[in-house]
Amino acid sequence: MQLVKTEEKKLADYVSFLEKETIQELNYFAKLMKGKKVAMVNATSFGGGVAEKLHSMVPLMQDLGLEVDWWTIYGEEKFYQVTKSFHNCLQGQQGVLKEDDKSIYLDYNCLNASYLKNWNYDFVVIHDPQPAALLEFYEKKESEKWIWRCHIDTSCPNMSYWNFLYQFIKKYDASIFTMEEYVPQDCYSLPNVAFIAPSIDPLSAKNKTMKMDEAKHILKHLNINVEKPLITQISRFDPWKDPLGVIDAYKKAKEVIPDLQLALVGSMATDDPEGWGYLFKTLRKAGEDHDIKVIVNTGDREVAALQTASDILLQKSLREGFGLTVAEGLWKGTPVIGGNVGGIRLQIENGITGYLVNSVEECADKIVTLLQNPDLMKKMSLAGREKVRKEFLITRNILDYLRLFYRLAITGKPS
Amino acid sequence: MQLVKTEEKKLADYVSFLEKETIQELNYFAKLMKGKKVAMVNATSFGGGVAEKLHSMVPLMQDLGLEVDWWTIYGEEKFYQVTKSFHNCLQGQQGVLKEDDKSIYLDYNCLNASYLKNWNYDFVVIHDPQPAALLEFYEKKESEKWIWRCHIDTSCPNMSYWNFLYQFIKKYDASIFTMEEYVPQDCYSLPNVAFIAPSIDPLSAKNKTMKMDEAKHILKHLNINVEKPLITQISRFDPWKDPLGVIDAYKKAKEVIPDLQLALVGSMATDDPEGWGYLFKTLRKAGEDHDIKVIVNTGDREVAALQTASDILLQKSLREGFGLTVAEGLWKGTPVIGGNVGGIRLQIENGITGYLVNSVEECADKIVTLLQNPDLMKKMSLAGREKVRKEFLITRNILDYLRLFYRLAITGKPS
Repeated sequence: MQLVKTEEKKLADYVSFLEKETIQELNYFAKLMKGKKVAMVNATSFGGGVAEKLHSMVPLMQDLGLEVDWWTIYGEEKFYQVTKSFHNCLQGQQGVLKEDDKSIYLDYNCLNASYLKNWNYDFVVIHDPQPAALLEFYEKKESEKWIWRCHIDTSCPNMSYWNFLYQFIKKYDASIFTMEEYVPQDCYSLPNVAFIAPSIDPLSAKNKTMKMDEAKHILKHLNINVEKPLITQISRFDPWKDPLGVIDAYKKAKEVIPDLQLALVGSMATDDPEGWGYLFKTLRKAGEDHDIKVIVNTGDREVAALQTASDILLQKSLREGFGLTVAEGLWKGTPVIGGNVGGIRLQIENGITGYLVNSVEECADKIVTLLQNPDLMKKMSLAGREKVRKEFLITRNILDYLRLFYRLAITGKPS
Repeated sequence: MQLVKTEEKKLADYVSFLEKETIQELNYFAKLMKGKKVAMVNATSFGGGVAEKLHSMVPLMQDLGLEVDWWTIYGEEKFYQVTKSFHNCLQGQQGVLKEDDKSIYLDYNCLNASYLKNWNYDFVVIHDPQPAALLEFYEKKESEKWIWRCHIDTSCPNMSYWNFLYQFIKKYDASIFTMEEYVPQDCYSLPNVAFIAPSIDPLSAKNKTMKMDEAKHILKHLNINVEKPLITQISRFDPWKDPLGVIDAYKKAKEVIPDLQLALVGSMATDDPEGWGYLFKTLRKAGEDHDIKVIVNTGDREVAALQTASDILLQKSLREGFGLTVAEGLWKGTPVIGGNVGGIRLQIENGITGYLVNSVEECADKIVTLLQNPDLMKKMSLAGREKVRKEFLITRNILDYLRLFYRLAITGKPS
């Protein structure tokens, strides 16, 4: 186990985004929890959404007066291979969890638990499956509250994996899922189940306000014509994100709006041959229509520029966990057209902050409607940013944690 | 410096490919050179054409009675970055060789030269620029012959790099270039310049005979219809290999031969963004014509299968060093249509082992001519394999080395 250092962050810098009541509530719970010792435990300090979020949340909680340590567990190649299959299978991939893999998983959790001997925390938040079995190898005090935070979509888990994991989870004092839909069916007996939606840090490199001039300047470098309308989807190239459907919708909309441009933007992992195969399919479908820009492995600034200066953002998923790119996009004041699935439904209020669509035709239709109706776009832009400000900023996420800590502190035992 | 171990190879296994005269000549020179000590020195034992060739050549020379050691030099990241720029700039890339880079290059050569103290070889063959400055830091005996073997296309080098390298090269007893065209203009004063064309090992994994049934079986796995005609180019995705021109030629030929298929096959390095960009261009040009198969990062067996079971191979380069894929293809008995440039002209006898073409139209034309003329294809198939057998097998390459060793041994000094 290793302590992670984070950059200092001040709640004061976030005050302009918050309502008076929220600030009061944050301060109220912070006062109650002042001096409480919290450990955040996850697998890695860099790469992936969890680490990104902890880099914002940990220093902000510290600024609120809690004593927060962020620990990452120690692992090696074979451990991460096993936990990668945990991740995939808990999201529904088929396969049976092998005895050898169970041993590897437990061995590393046991090894890491040896670092816990002199621990003295009030709250221990274990993120995701990798460190979930630490509790097996640690004798916790009654006053110490252990919370399992599940960031992944476990709505239809592979039961061979889930059953194995569940034996550890059920010993926790509380568990947090992203949405009610994510909770597997046998979890009725878990104590203190909380739901905390993901959030964005409005001051991170990806989300802090970028001037339109700067955004357009960056778009020009990406070979985009900033005088013409632009729709953009920022997503992995895989069937569930439906980039092929996005191209179809773009083509239909282009019949009405001939100078329409489409940007498809995604990160590629070099060790993901399936991802490359789907990118190739997308490129071949794009063909030689060079109003379609396919952009891979670009940086946070380019993503921010695209979210800021596109006319419309798409997230036409056919299946989606939460889809944080929707909140990121709305936060930039850009209307989002999203697939009518999963967490996208929490973020897009149909007709108000964007549109929820069920087909290529509907998607094309809404693209045209919006582009032909600048007043509507302006209204949606404001409504979208407001929606994120109220519901999906990191401060709301922190408040949810503080409420849960408080609940566990006062009840003392499972409710 | 490190000794490389190679697998044993026997000349006897190659006898069936050779004429009686060649075997006699090989044995004649081998007898004269028997017991001579040879050092081969290069940068790496794995990856790239030079290492591939040495894995065949070293054990075969040993089998012929020479005492051959293969050494690789020691280097670190910064050294290889410098020598990578050597490689690119000696092939004509612009830029000025910095003093710092000269120092790095010389430091590592000096370090490696410290291993040479007790060396006692008759012939030292230094491959490519990486170890070329070893001789600066080593006092060789008069009887010891140092040969610099240049595998790269130095026909139009960046003079800032070439001039730096040349000061070391001119102290060698001999140098070997692939073709006369590769020799930079100021080399008239080099002693004993020899020309040795590249070669293929007919018994390597890529080149040993594959049964047509097996080849077709593999092609089916690559999603190719083995009942329909197939043309294939195996090449990097870059402008000089002209994959876009290949697609144009395919499209023209397809007007006459509607069920024609095209396979474009190439390796991609993950650290080569330009290469990826050109692959994307190729994919978008291929569009949704799924008779075009784009295949990346496949193995030796798949390459061998494609070379064996394609009807025609293309190497429509606009610029080419040697183009060993042409020899590989001809060796499989498949006619090759190649760009009329560089070393391709040494391998394709126009109208006999394939065609040399100067344009998309000519290329399309020759594809149609061949596919409509099975008798001509059969004749070319035989002529192509015969051409490679006579001129481009590893045994010819070894004979060239033995002749040069002999010349240096008897003259004793520069000719």
